[in-house]
Amino acid sequence: MSNRTLQLGMVGGGQGAFIGAVHRTAALLDGVFALTAGALSSTPDRARASGAAIGLADDRNYPDWRTMLDAERRRDPGQRIDAVAIVTPNDTHFEIARAFAQAGFHVLCDKPLVHTSAQATELIRVVRNTGVIFAVSYNYSGYPLVRQARELIAAGAIGRIRRVCVEYHQGWLATRLEASGQKQAAWRTDPARSGAAGALGDIGSHAEQLVACVTGLELESLCVDQSTFVPGRQVDDDAAMLLRFVGGARGTLTASQVCVGAENDLRLRVWGETGGIEWRQEQPNELRVAKLGEPECLLRRGNDYLGPAARSATRLPPGHPEAFFEAFANIYRGFGAAIHAGASGLEAAAQHDFPGVLDGARGVHFIEKALESARSDARWTAARFIPPA
Amino acid sequence: MSNRTLQLGMVGGGQGAFIGAVHRTAALLDGVFALTAGALSSTPDRARASGAAIGLADDRNYPDWRTMLDAERRRDPGQRIDAVAIVTPNDTHFEIARAFAQAGFHVLCDKPLVHTSAQATELIRVVRNTGVIFAVSYNYSGYPLVRQARELIAAGAIGRIRRVCVEYHQGWLATRLEASGQKQAAWRTDPARSGAAGALGDIGSHAEQLVACVTGLELESLCVDQSTFVPGRQVDDDAAMLLRFVGGARGTLTASQVCVGAENDLRLRVWGETGGIEWRQEQPNELRVAKLGEPECLLRRGNDYLGPAARSATRLPPGHPEAFFEAFANIYRGFGAAIHAGASGLEAAAQHDFPGVLDGARGVHFIEKALESARSDARWTAARFIPPA
Amino acid sequence: MSNRTLQLGMVGGGQGAFIGAVHRTAALLDGVFALTAGALSSTPDRARASGAAIGLADDRNYPDWRTMLDAERRRDPGQRIDAVAIVTPNDTHFEIARAFAQAGFHVLCDKPLVHTSAQATELIRVVRNTGVIFAVSYNYSGYPLVRQARELIAAGAIGRIRRVCVEYHQGWLATRLEASGQKQAAWRTDPARSGAAGALGDIGSHAEQLVACVTGLELESLCVDQSTFVPGRQVDDDAAMLLRFVGGARGTLTASQVCVGAENDLRLRVWGETGGIEWRQEQPNELRVAKLGEPECLLRRGNDYLGPAARSATRLPPGHPEAFFEAFANIYRGFGAAIHAGASGLEAAAQHDFPGVLDGARGVHFIEKALESARSDARWTAARFIPPA
Amino acid sequence: MSNRTLQLGMVGGGQGAFIGAVHRTAALLDGVFALTAGALSSTPDRARASGAAIGLADDRNYPDWRTMLDAERRRDPGQRIDAVAIVTPNDTHFEIARAFAQAGFHVLCDKPLVHTSAQATELIRVVRNTGVIFAVSYNYSGYPLVRQARELIAAGAIGRIRRVCVEYHQGWLATRLEASGQKQAAWRTDPARSGAAGALGDIGSHAEQLVACVTGLELESLCVDQSTFVPGRQVDDDAAMLLRFVGGARGTLTASQVCVGAENDLRLRVWGETGGIEWRQEQPNELRVAKLGEPECLLRRGNDYLGPAARSATRLPPGHPEAFFEAFANIYRGFGAAIHAGASGLEAAAQHDFPGVLDGARGVHFIEKALESARSDARWTAARFIPPA
Repeated sequence: MSNRTLQLGMVGGGQGAFIGAVHRTAALLDGVFALTAGALSSTPDRARASGAAIGLADDRNYPDWRTMLDAERRRDPGQRIDAVAIVTPNDTHFEIARAFAQAGFHVLCDKPLVHTSAQATELIRVVRNTGVIFAVSYNYSGYPLVRQARELIAAGAIGRIRRVCVEYHQGWLATRLEASGQKQAAWRTDPARSGAAGALGDIGSHAEQLVACVTGLELESLCVDQSTFVPGRQVDDDAAMLLRFVGGARGTLTASQVCVGAENDLRLRVWGETGGIEWRQEQPNELRVAKLGEPECLLRRGNDYLGPAARSATRLPPGHPEAFFEAFANIYRGFGAAIHAGASGLEAAAQHDFPGVLDGARGVHFIEKALESARSDARWTAARFIPPA
Repeated sequence: MSNRTLQLGMVGGGQGAFIGAVHRTAALLDGVFALTAGALSSTPDRARASGAAIGLADDRNYPDWRTMLDAERRRDPGQRIDAVAIVTPNDTHFEIARAFAQAGFHVLCDKPLVHTSAQATELIRVVRNTGVIFAVSYNYSGYPLVRQARELIAAGAIGRIRRVCVEYHQGWLATRLEASGQKQAAWRTDPARSGAAGALGDIGSHAEQLVACVTGLELESLCVDQSTFVPGRQVDDDAAMLLRFVGGARGTLTASQVCVGAENDLRLRVWGETGGIEWRQEQPNELRVAKLGEPECLLRRGNDYLGPAARSATRLPPGHPEAFFEAFANIYRGFGAAIHAGASGLEAAAQHDFPGVLDGARGVHFIEKALESARSDARWTAARFIPPA
Repeated sequence: MSNRTLQLGMVGGGQGAFIGAVHRTAALLDGVFALTAGALSSTPDRARASGAAIGLADDRNYPDWRTMLDAERRRDPGQRIDAVAIVTPNDTHFEIARAFAQAGFHVLCDKPLVHTSAQATELIRVVRNTGVIFAVSYNYSGYPLVRQARELIAAGAIGRIRRVCVEYHQGWLATRLEASGQKQAAWRTDPARSGAAGALGDIGSHAEQLVACVTGLELESLCVDQSTFVPGRQVDDDAAMLLRFVGGARGTLTASQVCVGAENDLRLRVWGETGGIEWRQEQPNELRVAKLGEPECLLRRGNDYLGPAARSATRLPPGHPEAFFEAFANIYRGFGAAIHAGASGLEAAAQHDFPGVLDGARGVHFIEKALESARSDARWTAARFIPPA
Repeated sequence: MSNRTLQLGMVGGGQGAFIGAVHRTAALLDGVFALTAGALSSTPDRARASGAAIGLADDRNYPDWRTMLDAERRRDPGQRIDAVAIVTPNDTHFEIARAFAQAGFHVLCDKPLVHTSAQATELIRVVRNTGVIFAVSYNYSGYPLVRQARELIAAGAIGRIRRVCVEYHQGWLATRLEASGQKQAAWRTDPARSGAAGALGDIGSHAEQLVACVTGLELESLCVDQSTFVPGRQVDDDAAMLLRFVGGARGTLTASQVCVGAENDLRLRVWGETGGIEWRQEQPNELRVAKLGEPECLLRRGNDYLGPAARSATRLPPGHPEAFFEAFANIYRGFGAAIHAGASGLEAAAQHDFPGVLDGARGVHFIEKALESARSDARWTAARFIPPA
């Protein structure tokens, strides 16, 4: 690892924010990035206090993202941030991401990327024009055994896919937690900040991306039943849908935040003509693989029998479990590798194995189509994502 | 158990039939029934040979069910069969069940009960008129921990139900097994014998009944995506559906026979306002129960902390696993108890805890409505079952 | 199955006895045996009442085993019992088994077989002289996947064995249950009836047999730590031991009845030079198999990839779980097959795959040596079993 | 976290060393420490190259630990390292640890601490005299649910302890890997570097510490069977032992590196008079707790129902799994907290919840006594550890 440590700036993620600390731990885990600048809150005082608490140098601890952008672009090339991580509520992603990208900074943005497909298209355009590298933190695709599943499926290990079952179940919003002032619950259930989709956007989008990433399938149409079970809540907290993929595969996707007892239960099962795979985020070091007529096998992280994608995403030997932070760090690692490699624009994501702006745009399109289907009372709605030319 | 052993006759279940042997083992397990007569095949020679092989007395080893019915009704009351078990392919259930019931014999019939709601309504009428006891072998509801789940939910342990997820996945029809002459595959994929629904009827009907039994919810409407993945197959081998229940609960049901690696993977999860439960047929001695803010617990068969329904459905101490046969035998046990108790007609099933003709009729209605929705390309289809007056 | 149903008599197993009902269910499960005679209790009135309750014919419902033996041997050959099942407390096994065997009846006796090696040697002598078939109900070796494990190991699938870990943990005697009058606890903790060994004899003997059966290893020496944790208890309720096997393999065996939370937790793990296996009685339909450098696999009951021993011990398709009764019935099935085949004496057990009198004798020797080691304060004690010449 | 970041120096852990990178990741994970100096190899060139590769400043990238010690102590108090992490092979721990501690640097040393109890006693003396804080990286005790288990047991949740079962099974040394030149295998099987105990020292010592930490029991005596299964290997690769604890509890401990299929399978089960607990390192986010007469419960990391020790050792919400690095980091976190708090000497470990020099000394004593018992052919050997006065 003879590459220099990259400078990362962060927007959002101040005191009380869950995901900011996660991003920082992930970004720093491998020493690829160092956090050298930040505008950690939309409230200037809070931003400065948050930056001080995590040890940002005073002159790069900014009161707001515009100040940070201006100041950093005025620094000498070797002295400024290489990339920015945007970990603010969803409604602000677009403006911030566009501004930094236009200024030539690489961007890693939280998901869902933006609120509208028009915004996503605009970001794609900016990435095309500037050549900056743009990642979206669909962190679950960073797990080694997710990559193993993808590699197995791409190699035909389970044959042509027939059925996909993806679930993302949580229970933490089973009661009206947002009424208690809990910060995470408050913004995620506020349509002004989270967008029109609640559970659909917050966790359904992860489920969609996991399917796309592992199977390579393109969604053709979907048929959605969306619910708000907790009285008084302003967004959906539960959704179930039927999926049809280009080429004939079928699927179900459920995303619910009212499943009491579920914690962060993202599971993927895929069955093809000759085999099946199963992976669970809460037991991430294991992948179940079945083949016609053979005993089911358990593939475990860190073993030599895994393919290169899984092996290169691993830090510890078998049996020394890795988990959430390491998977998240794998997104930063790919992002950092692309920067070091001088990669550029839309191609960088596939080349360096991280979710990019196209994945983010596809996710936004998915949410739009899912909401459209739900409003039509579960009518099949065409949902194929065609990247803008 | 000072009650006399009841005499059971059997129609179907001859050599090569899987389910016949299961019924015999289940019926005899507790000594409630003895098999004393049979017409074990639709082919007279095969019927006689099958009966001889399992030790039926020569004079009660009948060549066909009509002969059996005539002969048995002419025997003295204490010398004739008390009940008949009908384990033939689905297309013949109606005629046989009606004939025996009209003759005053108690009936236990395999599922799905019949092919049309009109037939089901006619059977209900016969049961009402004759007072015979009529059971349908939805065997999975015989598991002790299924009954515990039902009892917990009825007692409000998880609060008002919000979401139901039921899956029934098998992999044995992932290839065109029926083309090989395998008998089970052949009749189950032949619409003339199995009915218009393949996986939907064969296993989807079990899933529907499990939900109804455990949750007590009434289905309001459904939205179905049905598939035939194996080329050349004449019935569906895969179905997924969205469910809405009276009162606002939502659900998903998947039934597929092409899930490579799945064996007989029937699972039920139910979440309510304050808790959730999970049960899997392949690990039937365990029930997971979650409550808001508490650690998840594992309830295990045979323990004193279980309720009366689960405890009375058990034969062995904790840790001495019971399984498929015992659950199936619990259906026969309830059926036999109803006979011994002199119960009568439609009320007997609820009183003695076995699935009755109304459950069978509801299942037929479910299949009809599911097919109707599937043909409409996944449109919401009203599916509430109103028992005939 | 064109063989005639065999007549079984039973000694012990009257009202309130757990194991009697288990034996009856197991014996009858496949229709190999019918229960036609019995002396079900040591108390004549209770014996008669118990026999009546389960429907024994009045003239073969005997007040005591001697009467039964006399009466049955006077019946015509085709009208008498073929075999006797002895399910009494351990202290009476010897006398009853010897008497029936000497009279030419086949015997299936509960474990541990007898109290002393001298008694066991005498039974072996009787079997040699009379040629009767003698089975011992080490029921856990009847599980299909135990047989698969045995077959795999014999075929070299894990190489030469290095380490064995067998555990049999229960929790039901964690308190002084015997003081409450619970019948099972009372006799099992009474040295006059159960023998000098408590947990060691009751469950440790199963663990020893499981190891011997699956691995084929011969015990060379052992080193035992035995405990009585519950105050006032007269026998051990917990034992742990180190094992050395002929040829260099090592092992541990723990048998405890005070493990709160454990139900009937018998587990076996075996590691060899090139692989390992794991089996748990409470999940009996699954066998884990690991091989050097390969993913661990799960072998499941009922599949075609299993070997003949496992496949022939199975009644239901994959995913339709079998459990305790079916495994127990497999012992009866082998015993019955030996009778039908006209097998004879000591060779019958190996030929028809059931535990025989030599296994019973080895178990008695194991208990003696374990107690000897325990009394020496965990000194290595030679424990190799040499069958009497 | 307003405390300043502490400066950490590292001895050992250069290129090719597994554990060095683990320590660095763990130390830096929470930002408590920054790595500012190092002598990363015993070979000066390699040391310098390794330090450069991870970005050490040139003037603090030392060729050997003595140079580092001399140079760092000459730096101004605020400019020198606060603490040193010693991650060299075992044979060098003593000299290095003593030297740094005597110079007043806080020490975190890998396990097993040293080779002899005399060395351990000397280190204790130095800690007493200098007041430095001394941690030993028994990392498994850093898992939140290990701490929860400890807290539950201390609070009497399972009553007085009866039986302990601890296992540490690996399979990576099932073949003679050291002959291939694999660096980890080479030094761990070389008695000159690893000490006389192979598996016993490498992983058995972790097992011993886990038991001591969770149960609070003191070992009274042990009886050991030690094996070397792989031909040509110079140290044991497998050990099993019986344990007796002060107060009457009994236990078994197995430590083996030849269990094919096992990866890093450290498990602890403890049963007391009224309950039991089970924890597995490979599923570290879950703790099973059983109580007399109640269903078993699964306690999961991150939930509010856990006690303060578990909650304060956690970084992520429930269902977002934490694993090996985070547990390891918890040791560093406690060590750092003690430094920040100005704690001093032997008391610091208990006060700030990390394993200290007394734990290290107890571990050395355990290995000595285990070897003594093994050489006596599994005779009970007194093994109580009395900290030096």
